[in-house]
Amino acid sequence: MSDVAIGVDVGGTKTLALMIARDGRMLGEVHAATPHAIAESIGAPTAEVVAGLVKELCDAQGRSVSEVPIGVGLPGMMRRDGRLVYAPNLQSASGAELGPLLGASLANANVFCENDANCAALAEHEWGASRGIDDFVMVTLGTGIGGGVFADGQLLRGRSGFAGEIGHMVVVARGAPCLCGNHGCWERYASGGGLHRLTREAALEGRLPTLVAQRGNAAAVRGEDVTAAAAQNLDEAVVVVREIGWWLALGLANLAAILDCGHFVIGGGLSSASNLVLPAARQYVADLVEGHAARPEIAITSSMFGPRSGAMGAGLVAFERSQ
Amino acid sequence: MSDVAIGVDVGGTKTLALMIARDGRMLGEVHAATPHAIAESIGAPTAEVVAGLVKELCDAQGRSVSEVPIGVGLPGMMRRDGRLVYAPNLQSASGAELGPLLGASLANANVFCENDANCAALAEHEWGASRGIDDFVMVTLGTGIGGGVFADGQLLRGRSGFAGEIGHMVVVARGAPCLCGNHGCWERYASGGGLHRLTREAALEGRLPTLVAQRGNAAAVRGEDVTAAAAQNLDEAVVVVREIGWWLALGLANLAAILDCGHFVIGGGLSSASNLVLPAARQYVADLVEGHAARPEIAITSSMFGPRSGAMGAGLVAFERSQ
Repeated sequence: MSDVAIGVDVGGTKTLALMIARDGRMLGEVHAATPHAIAESIGAPTAEVVAGLVKELCDAQGRSVSEVPIGVGLPGMMRRDGRLVYAPNLQSASGAELGPLLGASLANANVFCENDANCAALAEHEWGASRGIDDFVMVTLGTGIGGGVFADGQLLRGRSGFAGEIGHMVVVARGAPCLCGNHGCWERYASGGGLHRLTREAALEGRLPTLVAQRGNAAAVRGEDVTAAAAQNLDEAVVVVREIGWWLALGLANLAAILDCGHFVIGGGLSSASNLVLPAARQYVADLVEGHAARPEIAITSSMFGPRSGAMGAGLVAFERSQ
Repeated sequence: MSDVAIGVDVGGTKTLALMIARDGRMLGEVHAATPHAIAESIGAPTAEVVAGLVKELCDAQGRSVSEVPIGVGLPGMMRRDGRLVYAPNLQSASGAELGPLLGASLANANVFCENDANCAALAEHEWGASRGIDDFVMVTLGTGIGGGVFADGQLLRGRSGFAGEIGHMVVVARGAPCLCGNHGCWERYASGGGLHRLTREAALEGRLPTLVAQRGNAAAVRGEDVTAAAAQNLDEAVVVVREIGWWLALGLANLAAILDCGHFVIGGGLSSASNLVLPAARQYVADLVEGHAARPEIAITSSMFGPRSGAMGAGLVAFERSQ
């Protein structure tokens, strides 16, 4: 039984790898850009990057790859056998047999694959913001929206292990087109991609005059401009950030109605704007959830490990499944 | 340990009470209209009707009320202590302390309250359409939409017992107003109420010329006219019924993404039109669920006990909780 594990989180932009101890302490951290080129062997570039980071961590810590269990978190529908059957936000690895590919790149390694948001949920439940909480949903706001659902103290997996694809819950029937091929998915409205879309709309509609003047034209205003300006209390930007909070609350209210979870842990890249988005979401969820007055308070908190939740949870998966 | 139990289902229109044996066999059945008047003591008329049906069943079967455990299924957010904290589709009992009220009407009785769709899910799982299936959702299409979620072989209850309020999942942000005070809830589109709304819209837009001619004017065309005409293959009516199937599929696809349930059992009053609605829903769900090609087939089947699922499940609850 190893005293350390490696957890890798393959994100839309970067791939992060941590070596952690059993109590969650971080012993090493490396990262690289996530490859997006579509290779002939689907997913091979992803496996190569992951293998490189694993070797780098092992070398730095004086460990052999074969003695350290490795967990890998990936976005999308991940089967228990390590096949990423569908990943609309990581097309270069959608359909890849990641388990076998990593086994080939890392001879004698013990590799365990899991959905990235499920990993984040496991880490936050074990060590972080949802310790001791039986019913909660981890919501990762990145390019898309990932989810990990805990019900009655257990990670909800569903029939094939695909549970928690909350970003593809439709909240606007026949709405904005999504990378998954459907229309009106929640992640088109409340993720980093949603911020981008709302920013563009607001700029073109003349609702962001200061930022448009700064950038020279409406099309040049980026989501980051809006969150930065909102942090400086520029009213026109605050309005847009609060809209993201409304869309976030809408999906959380849906999940609360379906699951009766009392707690949401918000992580992922967009959570950097969380000191603006979360207060708005807390306020709006009261209007949006059925029977709000009759429910105990619904908590909406930031993840404790921020962008590291997924990798930490992948390490936890490695510990648990290698026993 | 009693060899029989009574299960009562308080529906939007009628209240049904069954006496059942441990194997689910029905020994007696009575019903009455559900009272909707708002009494000074909220829920008292509901409790009175339930108590009357229970006494009627016990008298007919030569049983004493005190020796037969009684389960009661109610629509809305039901707390474990028997308080129906919020019921948008049964305003006359919304907020009622049903447990104590029934205890007062039925001295020495053992009464156990549960959400009606949870009851239906329990009955279908024990004896019916979802026997042996670990991950499924019971969907009751009536005035509104109720839900009972099974995950990993267990009824999902959530923090306060409110899980499964799937009808109040918003699928059209800022859409049609709902009795719950929110807008765009699924039950505004895919329930009996949704059929009514779609019928009215179609009639006013001139898409139901034959039925409008039969009834004399657009406002007089009812949902039942549409389902009856669709059953006779009248094209204009089939189109509307297929729309209901699309809306049903939209919500089912959302639930499949969140829960990865492989099976839906459809019950409730509208399921009388299920031989038209379900084939449409089966077809549309393929377009609407994320990564359909990568998932095993999603089954959408009719409930085995139709309008009796809820009452049978309430009886099952009575057996289980009185042990």
